[in-house]
Amino acid sequence: MSEIEKGKMWDVIVVGGGAAGFTAALYASRRALATLVIAKDVGGQALLTQHIENYPGFIETISGSDLLAKFWRQAEKHGATTEIDEVIRIEKSSDEFIVRTKQGREHQAKSVILAFGMTPKDMGVPGEEKFSGKGVHYCATCDAPLYKGKTVAVVGGTNGAMDAALFLAKICPKVYLVHNRAKLVGDTNLVAQIAASSVIQFLPEHTVKEVKGEKFVTTLVLTGSPSTTATAGQASSGNTIFGDEELSVDGVFVEMGHVIKTECVKGLVELDATNAVVVNARMATSCAGVFAAGDLTDADYKQVVISAGQGAIAGLEVYKYLQRKAGKKAFITNDWTT
Amino acid sequence: MSEIEKGKMWDVIVVGGGAAGFTAALYASRRALATLVIAKDVGGQALLTQHIENYPGFIETISGSDLLAKFWRQAEKHGATTEIDEVIRIEKSSDEFIVRTKQGREHQAKSVILAFGMTPKDMGVPGEEKFSGKGVHYCATCDAPLYKGKTVAVVGGTNGAMDAALFLAKICPKVYLVHNRAKLVGDTNLVAQIAASSVIQFLPEHTVKEVKGEKFVTTLVLTGSPSTTATAGQASSGNTIFGDEELSVDGVFVEMGHVIKTECVKGLVELDATNAVVVNARMATSCAGVFAAGDLTDADYKQVVISAGQGAIAGLEVYKYLQRKAGKKAFITNDWTT
Repeated sequence: MSEIEKGKMWDVIVVGGGAAGFTAALYASRRALATLVIAKDVGGQALLTQHIENYPGFIETISGSDLLAKFWRQAEKHGATTEIDEVIRIEKSSDEFIVRTKQGREHQAKSVILAFGMTPKDMGVPGEEKFSGKGVHYCATCDAPLYKGKTVAVVGGTNGAMDAALFLAKICPKVYLVHNRAKLVGDTNLVAQIAASSVIQFLPEHTVKEVKGEKFVTTLVLTGSPSTTATAGQASSGNTIFGDEELSVDGVFVEMGHVIKTECVKGLVELDATNAVVVNARMATSCAGVFAAGDLTDADYKQVVISAGQGAIAGLEVYKYLQRKAGKKAFITNDWTT
Repeated sequence: MSEIEKGKMWDVIVVGGGAAGFTAALYASRRALATLVIAKDVGGQALLTQHIENYPGFIETISGSDLLAKFWRQAEKHGATTEIDEVIRIEKSSDEFIVRTKQGREHQAKSVILAFGMTPKDMGVPGEEKFSGKGVHYCATCDAPLYKGKTVAVVGGTNGAMDAALFLAKICPKVYLVHNRAKLVGDTNLVAQIAASSVIQFLPEHTVKEVKGEKFVTTLVLTGSPSTTATAGQASSGNTIFGDEELSVDGVFVEMGHVIKTECVKGLVELDATNAVVVNARMATSCAGVFAAGDLTDADYKQVVISAGQGAIAGLEVYKYLQRKAGKKAFITNDWTT
């Protein structure tokens, strides 16, 4: 990360630091475009996996964080600049774009590539935001190691939540699995492992009401559903607790899935019913000068190599867009002949 | 390469051994599909480059052949089988596909992924096919080292041909550059280097009439255009030769660009005016069960990571296609939750 020159006009700002974002930045910077990447973190969705076996070129398994660190270093090697910050609003101002961040910065660019992927769904309860990173986490693969020997809760009831609970059960003496429905939904294999675990206590039909603590999380306040008694199968397991209840925990892993959060570009580009950014085959959005790639687009594949391919297209298309705007020829020759 | 079981019904046959083909095979075999790759060679278009700097994950430069060897080994590690052969015809037979090869084999599959990329344009003159691989070559990056200290000719007049001539000039005492037009077309920088070379002799407005030899190429027969004298700038360089002329050469590098050769699927899938295979965003062709990825599609990006991304989509879509055909659920969960 480098000190950003105030008032600088970037050729392109890439929003997001995952596979799509860094590949877009790599391609844009190799075309000599002044390229700024603004990312909340380095890695994106790939951080969620420890073992990537299907990114071509890496025959042995590689972790998402190791692979994406390479993407990052490669983009910077070719000239891209990275800023760790969160984009809260992107506006069009005459022919340029203003990108506003959570840290109160305002960046200007001639074009934008949206590549900030998906965001973990939050619980939306008091204390959640306050303790985010201080006991409340959204990525067990990333942060579980901090809770070795501690008591934790996982919130959610699908494959991701079960996977997180089983992973945490290897290093924690007690893992609560809090789910607002009666049954877990997902791979039979995972459900069976959860049932067989002596470490994991499944709490069906319970919702989190509040996260409490001092400096760090100490307590999770739960509300049990009155209908719990109706699900005999679960109730008979002896795991159910009723009414408001406080659980003493050191950490809470929210594993409720992911959503596309595109509020920062609402009104700027066309979104579909799921808030995904609508793109064409050239990764162009409905707004000239704004391109998108990866998990936030309406192309529904969540794979590193597919996001990277889309990022490369977006990077090349930004170059062509800027060339055309400058009245220049936008022909892109193949890499092996130039 | 393994011995292929006769009469075996493959789930999918991938035609082509480049970035798109091996990534498609990787994804298909990871979905436990019986996957056969039929390829003329391992590497595809990526073989044409010695230094790939823009494939994300490889910060230091890697050669196309090294990178694609990794793609190949990874696909085989996950279960794909590779056969070195050339597909000459693909036919639909009731609900399946028959894939016929140059070596006279006949393979059967439930689905096909077309990923055989582009083919170097040939000269179409007598002796060319006979001496192919015996003095006639289509990839200077691949085969130039065989001609160290020898006399060679490069046929063509754009960036690819200039690049090949300059590369050969480093290891050969004499390099002819044969071009059917008066001027070279491409990067000014390359044109200047050609002009400055004492090794390269530029022969404008000459076409190759025949390739002659015994076991290997010995002679290139050229026809000069009568209009050559009109281009004073070139003629004054003293490089021009007139009428039919024989050049003594040890090797000929045909660098006339690449074309999409899709004769083997004519009538099976929709092609555009350039013979490219028309695909939708899911890499499906006009024929159910046939998908396509990479340089032979009408998506006009010739980049390893983009072809790989398309290959991944094709592999996943084949899986969904076969699941649906079998009346099963075709939902693909993310890699990090399964």
